Amino acid sequence: MLALSTPAFLVDRTIVERNCRAMRDKALASGVAFRPHAKTHKTVEIALLQHGGGIGPITVSTLAEAEFYADAGFRDITYAVPIAPDKLGRAAALARRVERLNILIDSFDVLRAVESANAVFDAFLKVDCGYHRAGVDPNDPDSVRLAMAMARSSAVHFQGLLTHAGHSYHARDVDEIRRVAAEETAALTRFRALLEGLGDVPRSVGSTPTLSVVERFADCDEVRPGNYVFFDAFQATLGSCRRDDVAVSVLATVVGSYPERHEAIVDAGALALSKDAGPDHIDPQFGYGIVCDTALRPLPARLVALSQEHGKVATSEPLPVGARVRIMPNHSCLTAAMYERYHVVDRGAVVGEWRPVRGW
Amino acid sequence: MLALSTPAFLVDRTIVERNCRAMRDKALASGVAFRPHAKTHKTVEIALLQHGGGIGPITVSTLAEAEFYADAGFRDITYAVPIAPDKLGRAAALARRVERLNILIDSFDVLRAVESANAVFDAFLKVDCGYHRAGVDPNDPDSVRLAMAMARSSAVHFQGLLTHAGHSYHARDVDEIRRVAAEETAALTRFRALLEGLGDVPRSVGSTPTLSVVERFADCDEVRPGNYVFFDAFQATLGSCRRDDVAVSVLATVVGSYPERHEAIVDAGALALSKDAGPDHIDPQFGYGIVCDTALRPLPARLVALSQEHGKVATSEPLPVGARVRIMPNHSCLTAAMYERYHVVDRGAVVGEWRPVRGW
Repeated sequence: MLALSTPAFLVDRTIVERNCRAMRDKALASGVAFRPHAKTHKTVEIALLQHGGGIGPITVSTLAEAEFYADAGFRDITYAVPIAPDKLGRAAALARRVERLNILIDSFDVLRAVESANAVFDAFLKVDCGYHRAGVDPNDPDSVRLAMAMARSSAVHFQGLLTHAGHSYHARDVDEIRRVAAEETAALTRFRALLEGLGDVPRSVGSTPTLSVVERFADCDEVRPGNYVFFDAFQATLGSCRRDDVAVSVLATVVGSYPERHEAIVDAGALALSKDAGPDHIDPQFGYGIVCDTALRPLPARLVALSQEHGKVATSEPLPVGARVRIMPNHSCLTAAMYERYHVVDRGAVVGEWRPVRGW
Repeated sequence: MLALSTPAFLVDRTIVERNCRAMRDKALASGVAFRPHAKTHKTVEIALLQHGGGIGPITVSTLAEAEFYADAGFRDITYAVPIAPDKLGRAAALARRVERLNILIDSFDVLRAVESANAVFDAFLKVDCGYHRAGVDPNDPDSVRLAMAMARSSAVHFQGLLTHAGHSYHARDVDEIRRVAAEETAALTRFRALLEGLGDVPRSVGSTPTLSVVERFADCDEVRPGNYVFFDAFQATLGSCRRDDVAVSVLATVVGSYPERHEAIVDAGALALSKDAGPDHIDPQFGYGIVCDTALRPLPARLVALSQEHGKVATSEPLPVGARVRIMPNHSCLTAAMYERYHVVDRGAVVGEWRPVRGW
């Protein structure tokens, strides 16, 4: 592993397998459908691990991912980002190649665009459970009317209600995440009760924090976690996982050492890590990742600034030029996307290489 | 242009050509060597434009860029990031394929590593002119000793002094940038005077802000600007350029419209823009880019949050689903690197496609 050219993105296979198994087992034990998100890793290999080694339902964030997974044999895909109307043709073409491609609808405008697209789409109503990104307001009577219109529309196979409690990332501790988790499922359950005559409409929920801190999934029909395959410094700080559940790190080399100002420069900058500020709502001095030694033990150091190819480390112990460090990234989804290939490691040895899909 | 699938990275050819011409003309008129940085665009096409259509000396930020440009016929390359000692073999192999590959040295440790590498390297002494990232302290007598040791070393062809005033990006206005620019050149000139017996050692300087705000380059021998080919929302806010000098934008589509909360969602998130916070030291509410209409007129809107594939826009005028916007990125170097291809536009029409090199 230490012979790799840096920066390099390392994925610990044992930890990924353990994370995948734990979440899948929880979904199976809870009796809910499991449709993990693939956007964090964007690889075929990990999508298979998410389902215990086989093909299963997945969630994606781009049509490029959807097409990549369809090519790899995945048959049941939810595209969980609101679709641009001019992509409906491309989505319809993909839908014909698989068993099901679910899209999201969250307004009459989108429903009308879908109805004009000369195809029939499987679709969820996207509901806002408090994150206030996409989704309809579950307390607005128009939202009920939209659900009923989707259920009646000849252009839509209505698949149910879908939400994402992204505001769980703004929590400060596990208790707060648990409150968000309870709201996430309750919002859909309350809303479903307003949909007269539609029966028990499926409720799909999911964010890694809310799905990680509960013992069992209740009050929902499907879960869609994604980040849990890797976790990251953010999730470990928030309490979604322990630090030794984090499966990924960026291997970097010290390329400048300035002990007189208690600083060093590593060859992992913004293009090797992404500029995600991490859990700075919990610790404003958090920095751009957790700087560790090669055995992933945190060093007395902070990654205080990133430029394109330089990472500046404030360190109380001098780091010599040529030394290797491993940086636990703040946001593994964004960091992984910076790499053409992941180096798969097992007990310190490189055992393989996985390649993610890229683009849109 | 509006028929492109979104998100798409648009490069206005006319503006790039104008930016390239202006900087090159200023270098020629100033009688200094011109070695533009290619890290912002990472394409062959723009590296040629930087030199008025031909091959010329360039600066790069990765060995992958250096190899890419060597393959394209560039013969004189400065690798302007401190080199990891274990990359010296790869650098030596590349150096044999070109006329000159300059590396940076900023410590006796690095000099010793270079001397152990069984090759002769062209090398600059990297000097810290106040940015405090890489480089030797010009006021430390050890720095003079290091310069003299490089000049005497049989493993080094000493090329001169090199600095980068990255702290110009922390300025708040043009006057402050001008002060940083004066320090940048003065630091090298003062330091050079301490190098007895070495003659007029060349002084290489460069940051886009410091090189943009001066009428003429003085007190230096070589300039290495990079970002100026594209500029961006940061540079325009800082005063390095006017807003209509910014050559790049991300074309995005409104995929969710929430007029009741004065918000919209566009399909350009962190993977389409990067999470660079922009000039938040000047305007803490700046957001993740400047949201414009398709003619690049700023809208009364702010890009307040980015998740992986969603950009959240706070907007006082509703943006309907399907509408197109162009987002002037905060940091064009980081945004460009997110794309496999750039769409080259001229007067609103797509006239070509340029592909950047990626990785390390």
